[in-house]
Amino acid sequence: MAEKEKLTMAVLSGDLERALAAFMLATTAASMGMEVSMFFTFWGLNIIKKNEGGIRSKGLMRKMLNLMNRGGSKRLKLSRFNMLGLGTWMIKRLMKDTNMPSVDEFIAMAHQMGVRIIACTTTCGMMGIPAEEDTFRSEVTTLAGAAYFLGEARHSKVTLFI
Amino acid sequence: MAEKEKLTMAVLSGDLERALAAFMLATTAASMGMEVSMFFTFWGLNIIKKNEGGIRSKGLMRKMLNLMNRGGSKRLKLSRFNMLGLGTWMIKRLMKDTNMPSVDEFIAMAHQMGVRIIACTTTCGMMGIPAEEDTFRSEVTTLAGAAYFLGEARHSKVTLFI
Amino acid sequence: MAEKEKLTMAVLSGDLERALAAFMLATTAASMGMEVSMFFTFWGLNIIKKNEGGIRSKGLMRKMLNLMNRGGSKRLKLSRFNMLGLGTWMIKRLMKDTNMPSVDEFIAMAHQMGVRIIACTTTCGMMGIPAEEDTFRSEVTTLAGAAYFLGEARHSKVTLFI
Repeated sequence: MAEKEKLTMAVLSGDLERALAAFMLATTAASMGMEVSMFFTFWGLNIIKKNEGGIRSKGLMRKMLNLMNRGGSKRLKLSRFNMLGLGTWMIKRLMKDTNMPSVDEFIAMAHQMGVRIIACTTTCGMMGIPAEEDTFRSEVTTLAGAAYFLGEARHSKVTLFI
Repeated sequence: MAEKEKLTMAVLSGDLERALAAFMLATTAASMGMEVSMFFTFWGLNIIKKNEGGIRSKGLMRKMLNLMNRGGSKRLKLSRFNMLGLGTWMIKRLMKDTNMPSVDEFIAMAHQMGVRIIACTTTCGMMGIPAEEDTFRSEVTTLAGAAYFLGEARHSKVTLFI
Repeated sequence: MAEKEKLTMAVLSGDLERALAAFMLATTAASMGMEVSMFFTFWGLNIIKKNEGGIRSKGLMRKMLNLMNRGGSKRLKLSRFNMLGLGTWMIKRLMKDTNMPSVDEFIAMAHQMGVRIIACTTTCGMMGIPAEEDTFRSEVTTLAGAAYFLGEARHSKVTLFI
């Protein structure tokens, strides 16, 4: 049997528009029969943090960082025209109007379609995020480092850095 | 006859420096005999909007969004050191001094060299932009969605997400 | 003998987190036996500028640009939560706590591992930076343009635009 063509993405950004682009591509590729891996790192970790409950991190500095940089798919903002939330709200309204899934719904869809969702352990430490399964949504299947990403990328037809 | 090697780019950013990088690569690749496709999405749609004339969109929210996020190659700004336009103005002066084409000239050049310029229909809706030929410059040859981009990317030697 | 698999990166961003991501990937790929080329352009040129000494550029505008946009690996900032330097300082503290190398150390490491570090001559002009070896750190081995990058990319297994 022929091997499936692969799409691998590194998602460093935590901006709403880049999160949407990543999941649009992931779900479209999966529906085209491609194998998809998404590797979340730096601000991208915010996309796959749990929406509910705080993160229990040790030390004052880590606690402060996690408070400021709370994360969760429902807290993502546009990189431009956020305008104290108005721009982000308008875009979310237009997404509903045009029947576009929310990031939350996209994560669930991608997971159901077999997209692998991976959290980068190398950057968790420096972002003050405990590299534990408990930190992330249930759709996150793997915790791994940069070598894992490169291992996937070198066997992929298409690799994107988002 | 051997197939041409391909370069495919997804341009999500509407920053002046990223627009320039994308077109420098597109025109250089075309001059090296590569086949080039550029797929503009989200803020990247601003790069290929018409400079003149407003966009006729329906509904108050869409009208507001298009007013704030007017777009057109001549309105692009640097992501840093814009300084109320001073930084962007200085960079444009230095571009002239060093005989670098403007974004406007780059788009025309790329089109003449056979670079395919594609507007993403999936994101037009959520940006409040009518997905019609009339919205975009004449160099835009195709309106298509995410599946089209992935179809190009999987046959490309090099795929970049900008 | 089999040719080595290649990783090529274009680094346009001068943000601290993207610089770190690029060098984590470069050093990991080199340790996995891959051949690595990093091509710095636009704000990315700041990462590989010398930390000490000013740049001697001609003309008032170039002098102003180089003063504002001074660069050097030690002056990089986070794209978010910089908070007048507090966020960047906290991240740097956490990097030390978790034994992560600084950008400075990463550049030296990458160079020792044989990673090729290239400065983009095409964009030096418009950033007001003299395209001379003297401008950049000693680890920068090559000054070259967009065609050089594409030449590397078309022979690479993985190409990333950062």
